[in-house]
Amino acid sequence: MTTSAHPFFRPEKRPHIEGDFKREEVALANRNSGLPLEALRYDLTPAGLHYLLIHFDIPYVTSAANWRVKVGGRVRVPLEVSLAEIRQLPQKTVRVTLECAGNGRAKLTPRWQSQPWEHGAVSTAEWTGAPLHYLLDRAGLAPDAVEVAFFGADRGFDAGIEHDYGRSLTVDVAMSDDVILAHTMNGEPLLPQHGFPLRLVVPGWYGMASVKWLNRIEVLDRPFDGYQQVGTYVYRQYSGDPGTPVTHIRVKSLMVPPGIPDWYTRRRLVDRGPVELFGRAWSGGGVQVAKVEVGIDGEWQEATLEPVSGRYAWRGWRFTWDAQPGEHELVCRATDENGNVQPLDPVWDSGGFGNNAVQRVLVTVR
Amino acid sequence: MTTSAHPFFRPEKRPHIEGDFKREEVALANRNSGLPLEALRYDLTPAGLHYLLIHFDIPYVTSAANWRVKVGGRVRVPLEVSLAEIRQLPQKTVRVTLECAGNGRAKLTPRWQSQPWEHGAVSTAEWTGAPLHYLLDRAGLAPDAVEVAFFGADRGFDAGIEHDYGRSLTVDVAMSDDVILAHTMNGEPLLPQHGFPLRLVVPGWYGMASVKWLNRIEVLDRPFDGYQQVGTYVYRQYSGDPGTPVTHIRVKSLMVPPGIPDWYTRRRLVDRGPVELFGRAWSGGGVQVAKVEVGIDGEWQEATLEPVSGRYAWRGWRFTWDAQPGEHELVCRATDENGNVQPLDPVWDSGGFGNNAVQRVLVTVR
Repeated sequence: MTTSAHPFFRPEKRPHIEGDFKREEVALANRNSGLPLEALRYDLTPAGLHYLLIHFDIPYVTSAANWRVKVGGRVRVPLEVSLAEIRQLPQKTVRVTLECAGNGRAKLTPRWQSQPWEHGAVSTAEWTGAPLHYLLDRAGLAPDAVEVAFFGADRGFDAGIEHDYGRSLTVDVAMSDDVILAHTMNGEPLLPQHGFPLRLVVPGWYGMASVKWLNRIEVLDRPFDGYQQVGTYVYRQYSGDPGTPVTHIRVKSLMVPPGIPDWYTRRRLVDRGPVELFGRAWSGGGVQVAKVEVGIDGEWQEATLEPVSGRYAWRGWRFTWDAQPGEHELVCRATDENGNVQPLDPVWDSGGFGNNAVQRVLVTVR
Repeated sequence: MTTSAHPFFRPEKRPHIEGDFKREEVALANRNSGLPLEALRYDLTPAGLHYLLIHFDIPYVTSAANWRVKVGGRVRVPLEVSLAEIRQLPQKTVRVTLECAGNGRAKLTPRWQSQPWEHGAVSTAEWTGAPLHYLLDRAGLAPDAVEVAFFGADRGFDAGIEHDYGRSLTVDVAMSDDVILAHTMNGEPLLPQHGFPLRLVVPGWYGMASVKWLNRIEVLDRPFDGYQQVGTYVYRQYSGDPGTPVTHIRVKSLMVPPGIPDWYTRRRLVDRGPVELFGRAWSGGGVQVAKVEVGIDGEWQEATLEPVSGRYAWRGWRFTWDAQPGEHELVCRATDENGNVQPLDPVWDSGGFGNNAVQRVLVTVR
C-alpha cells in the first residue's frame, strides 16, 4: 500500500467475537445510520433516511465554489477542474440503490468488530452529474493506464495506516456510461454527509466504491494498493486469505415489518386478517430481480413484483397474508435474472461483507 | 395509565447491566441517529444530521392535505383543524436546540437497557409554525383544565403497554408563546422522521415533549397518566422511586474532536502546534450559557463564547490550544446563568436520563 504507517500502528488484528457488542461497535452504530425498515415504503429514500457509512469525519465544506478536482497520473493532460466545469459536461440522472458492503455483518457468528449492521444499510436516491468518462476523455488516458483511483477529502487511519479515503476502478468500468461525478441527490445539492459538494457514484456496486468529497483522481499503470482497496473490502475466509475483491451488490430483499413494534425488542404485533406485506428487492451489476418469494412459517409463495423503476434501482414487491392468531415467522427471498438466490442463512465472511441472507421477521398475531 | 395492557405484557423489568451491549441496544442504535460530533460546526444542523429518537415506526404519510388535528376534552368547542387552518394562524420561527433526555445513557454504569447514546443526541433547527395557544384559545379551555395532552400517529408498546405516543404540558406551559405547532424545519416541510406533516415543538425541554406526527390534543382536568409521561421520562434513583419528571434540558457542552480519527476506536491524532478547538454549549428553559471552560490535562481555562443566536439555541465556543506531542485529555464544561455547572462525572439515574457529564476527548499529538 502506498500509505504511511501510523504512530498508533499495532500488528495484531481485532479478534472476531460472538455475543454482546463492544462499546466501539455501539459508537459506530450511533455515528452511522441505517434505514429504518418502515422507510422501505419510499421509492426514493427521503433526505436524512438514506443510510450512512462514514469512515472518518464528514469534511466541513462551507462552499462548493472553490472545490477543485485534480486529475493526474497516467494522463496526457493533468487537469484541475471546478464544479462549474463539471456541470458544463453532459449531465445525467441515475436512480441507484446503494448498499453498504457490511450490511448484515451483525448477523454473522462470529463477527468482525466493525459497524454492526443488521439490515438497514441500503437506500435509493437519484444522483445527477457528469459521466466520469467525459472528464477522463478530456485528460486523455495514457496507453498503459490500468486503473483509475479516486480520493476524498476525508482522512484518517484504519489498521494503523493513515490515508485519504481512496478506491479504484478498472479503466473499463471507469469509462462506462453510468459511473458519474454527482453533485445532486434527489434534485438537491448533496448533503454534507453524502459527499458535498461532489462524489463518485458507481451504480450496481456496494457503496464503498462511491467515493465521497471527491477531490483527486489518479490514473494508474498498476492496480491501486490503497488500504480501502486491498486492506479491507475483500471477501476472505480466514486471516491471510488473498481473497476476492468486493464489487457488485448481491441479490437481496427486505420486508417492512408489519404491525406495530415494541420499543426495546422491536417485536411486532399484528391484528388478524388480511395483511398487505410490502418490501423491496434488488441486485447488483445492473442485473434485475426476477422473483420474490414470501415464506410464512416455512411455506413459500410468490410475491407480486412492482414495475422496474431503473436498471440500478430496487423493485417493490407485495403479498397479502391472511394472518391468523399465534406466533409466525415471515421471510422473503429474491432471485435475480442470473439465477442467484438469497441464502436462508448467512455465508461466512471474515470481514462481514456481502451478507445477503434473508431477513426473518417474528410476529405475534392477535 | 389510561392505556391497555398488551398481550406481551410481562411484569419483570429489564435489568440494569454493565459492560458490553445487547443486540437490542445495537439495533436501536442503528435505527436512531446521533449527530456525528464534527457536525457541531453547523449553526443549524443540516437535514439528515439532526439526531433522531423514534420510539415506534415512522408513520407513512404521503400527503399533508388530509392531515387533521383534533382538539377535545375540557374545551368549550371541540375542533378538528387542517394544516391549512394551522398555517392561517399567526406564525413564528424559533431556533431550538433539541436534546434527547437519554443522551449520555451509554456512559452510565450500570445502565438501563435502551437507546445507548454516548453524546450525539443533540442538534439545532429552526422550526416554523403557529404558537399552540392560538389553537387552544379558539377551542377555549374549560375552567377546570389542568393539563394539555398531545398524541402522535405513532403507535406501539413499551413495558407491555400499548399506546399512541403521548405527552402532556401544564396549561401554563402550553399557553406560553414559544410552544408551537410546527410544519416547517429549516425552511422546508418537515421530513418524515421529524414528524411530517406536523409536530409540537417545546423549546428548552428535552426532546420527548416535542410530539411528532401530532394528530390529537386532549385538554384534561387532571395530570396526564400515559406511559410516556409517568412510566418513563422520570428521574428515579431506584425502581419504585416516585421520582421527578424530566422537563428542561440541563446545561451541557460538547467539542468537535480535533484532528483525524481511527475508524474503529475513533481515537484522535492531532499535529503539534496551535489547534483551534470548537464546540457548542446550551442549557434548557430559556436559560443562557454564561461560561465555557476548557480543561487540558486537568488545567482549566476559559473559552471565547460566540454571540447568542437565540434564547433556545446552542452557542458556539472556541479556544486555541498549543498542542505538544504526547497523550492528552481534552474536556469542556459549561456554566449557565443560573450557576448550574456540568458535572465531571455522570450522576446516576435509573432510566439514564439527563446525563450532562462532560465529554472526554483523548488525543495523541505528534
